[in-house]
Amino acid sequence: MDESEAFPSDQPNVAGHFPRESESEFLSAREAAAMLGVKLPTVYAYTSRGLIQSVPGGKGRSRRYRRRDLERLCARRDARAGHGPVAAAALRQGEPVMDSSITMISVERGPIYRGRSALELATEGRSFEWVAEGLWSGDWRDRPLPESWQPAGLGIDLGGLTRVLPSKAGPLPVLSFVIPLLASHDPGRFSWHPEAVLARARFLLRRSAALLALGREGEDPGPAVEAALRAPSIAAAVGAAFSIDLKDDEIDVLDQSLVLAADHELNASTFAARVAASTGADIYGCISAALAALSGPRHGGAADRVDALLLEAGPAERVEEVVHDRQRRGEVIEGFAHPIYAPHADPRGTRLLELARALRGNAEPVQSVIALVDAMQQGGFGGPSIDVGLVAVARALGLPAGTATALFALARTVGWVAHSLEQYEAGFLVRPRARYRQDPAAAG
Amino acid sequence: MDESEAFPSDQPNVAGHFPRESESEFLSAREAAAMLGVKLPTVYAYTSRGLIQSVPGGKGRSRRYRRRDLERLCARRDARAGHGPVAAAALRQGEPVMDSSITMISVERGPIYRGRSALELATEGRSFEWVAEGLWSGDWRDRPLPESWQPAGLGIDLGGLTRVLPSKAGPLPVLSFVIPLLASHDPGRFSWHPEAVLARARFLLRRSAALLALGREGEDPGPAVEAALRAPSIAAAVGAAFSIDLKDDEIDVLDQSLVLAADHELNASTFAARVAASTGADIYGCISAALAALSGPRHGGAADRVDALLLEAGPAERVEEVVHDRQRRGEVIEGFAHPIYAPHADPRGTRLLELARALRGNAEPVQSVIALVDAMQQGGFGGPSIDVGLVAVARALGLPAGTATALFALARTVGWVAHSLEQYEAGFLVRPRARYRQDPAAAG
Repeated sequence: MDESEAFPSDQPNVAGHFPRESESEFLSAREAAAMLGVKLPTVYAYTSRGLIQSVPGGKGRSRRYRRRDLERLCARRDARAGHGPVAAAALRQGEPVMDSSITMISVERGPIYRGRSALELATEGRSFEWVAEGLWSGDWRDRPLPESWQPAGLGIDLGGLTRVLPSKAGPLPVLSFVIPLLASHDPGRFSWHPEAVLARARFLLRRSAALLALGREGEDPGPAVEAALRAPSIAAAVGAAFSIDLKDDEIDVLDQSLVLAADHELNASTFAARVAASTGADIYGCISAALAALSGPRHGGAADRVDALLLEAGPAERVEEVVHDRQRRGEVIEGFAHPIYAPHADPRGTRLLELARALRGNAEPVQSVIALVDAMQQGGFGGPSIDVGLVAVARALGLPAGTATALFALARTVGWVAHSLEQYEAGFLVRPRARYRQDPAAAG
Repeated sequence: MDESEAFPSDQPNVAGHFPRESESEFLSAREAAAMLGVKLPTVYAYTSRGLIQSVPGGKGRSRRYRRRDLERLCARRDARAGHGPVAAAALRQGEPVMDSSITMISVERGPIYRGRSALELATEGRSFEWVAEGLWSGDWRDRPLPESWQPAGLGIDLGGLTRVLPSKAGPLPVLSFVIPLLASHDPGRFSWHPEAVLARARFLLRRSAALLALGREGEDPGPAVEAALRAPSIAAAVGAAFSIDLKDDEIDVLDQSLVLAADHELNASTFAARVAASTGADIYGCISAALAALSGPRHGGAADRVDALLLEAGPAERVEEVVHDRQRRGEVIEGFAHPIYAPHADPRGTRLLELARALRGNAEPVQSVIALVDAMQQGGFGGPSIDVGLVAVARALGLPAGTATALFALARTVGWVAHSLEQYEAGFLVRPRARYRQDPAAAG
């Protein structure tokens, strides 16, 4: 997810039907120089300084340069020239549009949650719930978890739910409509006091985990939902929702994964949550806005595309061949070299892959991911991002394809809540302006 | 809605629990001067130029100056000083963050939809559907409406829906969860080609109108939903959803109202739709994000608060007294002097009130709105905004309290779709950055 959060691909095959077909992801050095209005050596200098990513061009061909990096450099240059472009660039990784005290991204250390390294929190074996409390409050002292984390009922009629849902909805669509439904049953939801919001957030995380049972095909989800609602922790609830009784070491890996994915500053979904929060929308509304943004293939689709590649490949020994075939056909493979971290590896992806390997490195599903990572690294494409890492963990735990995206949504709900609370506190309504330009194609 | 779209109130009584209680809506001239760092005569000059709104201070007291206007002026001044503040101001009615060819707002003429005045389109008796097509395509030539406007089925199981919904959900919560549910039944929804998107948008408008039948208490909504799905137009479907058989002149008033509310540039909900669209979210997701933003009391609550004031007042002759009581208690009354238009009146509000008066000006429910508008104008508070106008029309048509907000959501869906399509075309992912600032209150 974070790969596409920051630097979506423009290849049609990568992002479904959405992106413009006329654009291609990589340019030659000459094209890059023309786009930037600089000489060739400047392009090479930018590349060696890490401002532009480049990839090998294949046998006997020159290196290729990433279009999105070039666009960002253009936006920065424009931003120095006057105000209008600054405001326009502000929505494209330009100048900061707001202050935030939640997460600082360190290129070497990964996300730092209110002063605490996410990777260290994971290593310390902190539970997802414990880290959520720290991320929300900024208070990292040891104390018991609030009662609202305790098991709770679903609050809506499961029979009615299964009647209206299609048989194979998938986890994100289920969450997208159950969260507003839960809202409609909660008339007190408009209190913005942090304790009222957080009590609802904890219930929602529990219920969201349980509702992962609903996206699957053909089974009666009742027993799995019930088991997840009664499970002793969110991580255990995820396993229960998929009818898997996770062992302690597996719970620990899942907790670490959720911790690592809990926040990553203002990606598109988190920003959508803040826009909703700025109007005073309740926490269900903020999460709904975020889920809507996450549903776009440019944002939430990367892990699904990694899943699909691995399903296409089948056995681990075929993965390298599939990677090479895709590269030969000019198809981009996502989930590598996260642009915020490049040329460093995304430390979250590296850690998640380690966890999957330590847990079940000899099993075929994990071997396939390792083969993918090896093939990409041999091709010079950099380390795995969080998307590939979550796919590896989901496979190590025996969770079905498509679950990595759901794990991301569940984990990131914690970040969406933190940012919504911060936006309530900031108090300003997001109301940007557009500049009207007559459409030259208009007939009227 | 548009009142709060642009300039939310900070009074706790106005916006529910949400706003900060320590802020007050109006400042003295001296406080205003201190905030702006200017001398008193400059404050008066800004006020006479319409840059700051002021209100009478009550018996023997000086005029008071609107805090939000002062904040906007501060943001503009900061914007001239350097880049960082420009980007920060960009989210608060600052420099434009993007180009748009959809709606230009003329202070005298109201919204201009792709070159055509919304007020003139309404006067010409153009149907809501016809204007929607023009707003989407920019092509205003006469032609038959596309077939996808035709009556259609609901596509989901109504019995299951009524089982999971609370008995008195209200129209916005119903739409917020039914739209993602409809999405989950539509696997082809990720095509971003305009014709595919628009076919879905037309179906969604029809179904949204029909689903207004679901938010009501205690009745079996089945017959009303069925009648609305079969109705010959969206306006007729709205009437049918409330079991009201609208006459031709009533249909015309409803069509005009929907036309006037169809778009108003980048308010918070429209911007939320564009953030979702930028990730490639399908049109259901874009509308869901917009509805989430609209659900906040700062954005979508103004018409509900006008409704509540009129319900509190009861008969028309008590309205003036309620207005004066609220003013004496220091409670702000919303729905007047839209800041984008002030000191002009919001031409949409004026027109809607005229329509309600012409249709049923002698009926008590409309008389109450007229009494409210008269009392506010005598107090120097300016003309009615679109919120008050929609309340007047809803009352003239015999629609229940709370329907004005639903009419706004239905009408603005057209604008959300237009902006989503424009954002698909623009092709960039919205990914702003935040500046990390350590929270001084943090313990960890």
